[in-house]
Amino acid sequence: MPYKAISGIGEFGLIDKIAAIVEPTLYTVPQLMAGIGDDCAVYQPSEGLLQVATTDMLVDQIHFDLLTTPLKLLGSKSISVNVSDICAMNALPRYALVSIAIPSSFSVAMIEELYEGMSYAAKEYGLAIAGGDTSSSRSGLVISISMIGEVSCEQLTHRSGAKPGELICVSGTLGGSAAGLKLLMREKEIMLEHIENNEPYTKSFMADLKEYSDAIQHHLLPLARIDIVRLLHSRHIRPSSMIDISDGLSPELQHICRRSKTGALIHENRIPIHPATRQIADELQDDALTWALNGGEDYQLLFTISKEEYKGIADNKEISVIGEITDMEEGLRLSDIYGMTIDLTSIKGFDHFSS
Amino acid sequence: MPYKAISGIGEFGLIDKIAAIVEPTLYTVPQLMAGIGDDCAVYQPSEGLLQVATTDMLVDQIHFDLLTTPLKLLGSKSISVNVSDICAMNALPRYALVSIAIPSSFSVAMIEELYEGMSYAAKEYGLAIAGGDTSSSRSGLVISISMIGEVSCEQLTHRSGAKPGELICVSGTLGGSAAGLKLLMREKEIMLEHIENNEPYTKSFMADLKEYSDAIQHHLLPLARIDIVRLLHSRHIRPSSMIDISDGLSPELQHICRRSKTGALIHENRIPIHPATRQIADELQDDALTWALNGGEDYQLLFTISKEEYKGIADNKEISVIGEITDMEEGLRLSDIYGMTIDLTSIKGFDHFSS
Repeated sequence: MPYKAISGIGEFGLIDKIAAIVEPTLYTVPQLMAGIGDDCAVYQPSEGLLQVATTDMLVDQIHFDLLTTPLKLLGSKSISVNVSDICAMNALPRYALVSIAIPSSFSVAMIEELYEGMSYAAKEYGLAIAGGDTSSSRSGLVISISMIGEVSCEQLTHRSGAKPGELICVSGTLGGSAAGLKLLMREKEIMLEHIENNEPYTKSFMADLKEYSDAIQHHLLPLARIDIVRLLHSRHIRPSSMIDISDGLSPELQHICRRSKTGALIHENRIPIHPATRQIADELQDDALTWALNGGEDYQLLFTISKEEYKGIADNKEISVIGEITDMEEGLRLSDIYGMTIDLTSIKGFDHFSS
Repeated sequence: MPYKAISGIGEFGLIDKIAAIVEPTLYTVPQLMAGIGDDCAVYQPSEGLLQVATTDMLVDQIHFDLLTTPLKLLGSKSISVNVSDICAMNALPRYALVSIAIPSSFSVAMIEELYEGMSYAAKEYGLAIAGGDTSSSRSGLVISISMIGEVSCEQLTHRSGAKPGELICVSGTLGGSAAGLKLLMREKEIMLEHIENNEPYTKSFMADLKEYSDAIQHHLLPLARIDIVRLLHSRHIRPSSMIDISDGLSPELQHICRRSKTGALIHENRIPIHPATRQIADELQDDALTWALNGGEDYQLLFTISKEEYKGIADNKEISVIGEITDMEEGLRLSDIYGMTIDLTSIKGFDHFSS
């Protein structure tokens, strides 16, 4: 595709192109009465439902690296991370507002790819991209998305609400995203070394990544567990507390316990570690359990549920019981494969501002 | 105040500080059931009302310059520009989500100032700061705010809807913000020159700005015209179309005419130019009319209304009638003080991506 600079079509030309790409998402949400083209999007709230609202900002060099991240996948991921927050309230997403600050090096085609990824993901989740803002950036790309979802009062699930004796459940597998990221970072280093040494760098160097493509996909194209929310709704089951795992199992469980004023005991051998993750960890001389506890970006759902309620979803192979909520005094503990217990609070998640 | 680095309190310490600053805004909105502290904010939509949603991103070096912009005013402005979009739909703001990407050079006190400005503005407008996201930034500060408002179906006002023969009205005065910005830019240049030449730069250099403080305030602390929306509601008057003036009178009128499929004729001598603006323009050898037409960031409301409906607000001194909507074939014209007509579309507003 020939390079077309954004300056060639101007701000309104760009907005027209974006509006055309996201237009199909509007048809998935009949309550949306007006999308891009006015000062605001207009939405008719569903009668009797509560509204949940979240926002997430993705910053170049902090949350992603364009050297290892295809723009279409980045677009999709930026939608998914917000849907994941909506799902964590046991709610379903309805519409999103998308703001981006665009570096001058970006072409029209690059922006189109980004929005095609967003539009694709939005259609999959059944939500509308209803508005946004475009700006130039003197430095890197910034994507800021806000999302509105809806849920009935009976289904709304907070982080607080866990009670001693309840089961701790997690969806899917953990650690895969961290493993994928580590592989991509190693690949980037190899690539930069080749460039530095003026050596050719061809696709053949990536041939051995094929068997790890699932882990890499977990990192580049995480999917929010809207299927779990739909399952819970269809079976009229409400977890007592829920959160999505964006920073790793350990810090997210700490959030639930802090807000619920409880402790927790989880078992190492019950943590569903992503299949290829142990092998990748061995190869990179790292630890798969640490990635699962602290790697982050798995976007699985972590929830607590009474033993009685759990029976209603026990048949689902995507949900693992990893432990039990305890009294606050017992703290947050991990019992390892040797039967030793470790204090989970000694393991820290990602902090944007730690030195 | 002693310098305290954000790394010293960490991400959760910072979020706690922010939550404490914005907490008083929550009490202004009883429908907000949960704010910061969960995966999403929770809101109970007002029965029978439609929802409007907007988002605006403010980027360092593009939308503001920290050398000339106090952080508290920047916080307030970032709320006001979103409220202005909500007002442009004839709606009232309810809650906002605030995301920021913070450069490593920022201290805790700087972030507190920014949020104090936001919190102050939110309380003035009667909206809640209900959630957000904090991230680090490898370059400049980025503020991204999304805002939700509500309006009845009867009061909702789009950009489309203007009809030939209707009056074109504008609130307040125009050009003041552009004049203030030009003064600040001149002042910055003088300051940088002094620094470059190793000469002292003291406050006395700014002494002559006192008489222009109103224009500078228009730029640094613009206020959204929520008072005009309240006036329209209280008198049960609905404009046929409305937009807020963020990019200048001329491009905004073009938006209304394009969406309404009409033309327009406005009169130079009826445009309410901000009082000090002509004097500042003379001093800087620039043109006050161009600033009013194209300067942007005045955040006044531009609306069209039938002659009959206008009678209901004719007593309000804050609203000026500046012209009339015409057939589309007549184009967009400005009749100047000599009676000559100029094609308004030949005057372009700010384009983020123009070369």
